[in-house]
Amino acid sequence: MDGVSAASKKSPIGHVALVGAGPGDPDLLTIRAARLIGQAEVVFVDRLVGAGVMELISPAAEIVPVGKSKGEHSVPQEEIHRRMIDAAKTGKRIVRLKGGDPFIFGRGGEELEALRAAGIEVEIVPGISSALGCAASAQIPLTHRDMAQAVTFVTGHAALGQEPDLDWHALARSNQTVVVFMGVGTADTIAARLIAAGRDPSTPIAVVENGTRANEIAAFGSLGEAADLISSAGINGPAL
Amino acid sequence: MDGVSAASKKSPIGHVALVGAGPGDPDLLTIRAARLIGQAEVVFVDRLVGAGVMELISPAAEIVPVGKSKGEHSVPQEEIHRRMIDAAKTGKRIVRLKGGDPFIFGRGGEELEALRAAGIEVEIVPGISSALGCAASAQIPLTHRDMAQAVTFVTGHAALGQEPDLDWHALARSNQTVVVFMGVGTADTIAARLIAAGRDPSTPIAVVENGTRANEIAAFGSLGEAADLISSAGINGPAL
Repeated sequence: MDGVSAASKKSPIGHVALVGAGPGDPDLLTIRAARLIGQAEVVFVDRLVGAGVMELISPAAEIVPVGKSKGEHSVPQEEIHRRMIDAAKTGKRIVRLKGGDPFIFGRGGEELEALRAAGIEVEIVPGISSALGCAASAQIPLTHRDMAQAVTFVTGHAALGQEPDLDWHALARSNQTVVVFMGVGTADTIAARLIAAGRDPSTPIAVVENGTRANEIAAFGSLGEAADLISSAGINGPAL
Repeated sequence: MDGVSAASKKSPIGHVALVGAGPGDPDLLTIRAARLIGQAEVVFVDRLVGAGVMELISPAAEIVPVGKSKGEHSVPQEEIHRRMIDAAKTGKRIVRLKGGDPFIFGRGGEELEALRAAGIEVEIVPGISSALGCAASAQIPLTHRDMAQAVTFVTGHAALGQEPDLDWHALARSNQTVVVFMGVGTADTIAARLIAAGRDPSTPIAVVENGTRANEIAAFGSLGEAADLISSAGINGPAL
């Protein structure tokens, strides 16, 4: 830009903490995350961050909502980057709060790259991924010596938006757990493709909305009835 | 056994919290985990639990080490179950501390089943999986819109012990991140199989030992040089 960004390659010109807000319950924040949230002067927040977590933000802090809501107008990713960089350059304590863990979907990697490229120092604070939070809450182990020797996290959203570049045959193997993030809208398609690729329609599944929160809905059934399960449980928001 | 277990099917006869101790740094415990650890009267601990986490245990609490150490004598899993059940039946506050997250490898699922079968009430407290902790610490996103649309956690240990029932061709696909737990001893084999299955030997890898702890070692290189990378970095303990 004007010499500032050139100088930035030597010493950082600001600091952003990219903080995992966990699955919703503030009790499931890490100790470090809770401390940084309480100390922040500017907080950039996603829509999926729990209300209880939001309450930990200082009343004096500026809250910048940058969440993406299904079907609604949302702040473009580049705009989020620009705003965070501008805020960091003021020298204030900036927290970027992301639902779950910053590095499991949700573009934490892109934000890290953009901030680093602008000479901003970035601290990553991991969070309880919603996959882990929901598994704990619903008491469903993600790996099991006898049944699941691997666990794969995939996004159901990409499967809808762009061409679903997922290896359905690999995901259909019976000795692993598959966790689909944001897959409610595409559950029908995802279930059909897994079954077409050889997964048994009787494979047990759970669909969890608002896992770990007071309004959690968990529905249990089989892969063959995924869509029915979701509609009869009244799940229509982001879910696993 | 003697009527107690029959009655147990109606009302729980004890309580165990299966708590994720996270990757090592006590600052990365969840708030709930830290509270339960501090209140526990008996704590069953794995070898991988960080020293800083151990310091949060009350001096009045009984600590029962049940960790599995490479090559050393270890407490059989059924014996761990039996001891936990016995302890829970005393009505004391029992915490079972497991490195990382209880449901990502480490047999949390088996312990849950055994406790439930004995009529013990179980609470699961998720933890920062070492995969997430190390990724944050080394600033390596696990998913990325442009590069990795899925992330799979596998255990390198099973790949050595029993027949490696992993789908190497699926893991070799370039658009996903693979996290290998406890894979140092088998890194050579794992890298060779991934490459044989078509993964590019130049695929970037990171090997992280004691991630998030003061003695963290992180080594960065390529898949083709995995074994050299590990030996030249002096990594010989559990690592990702």
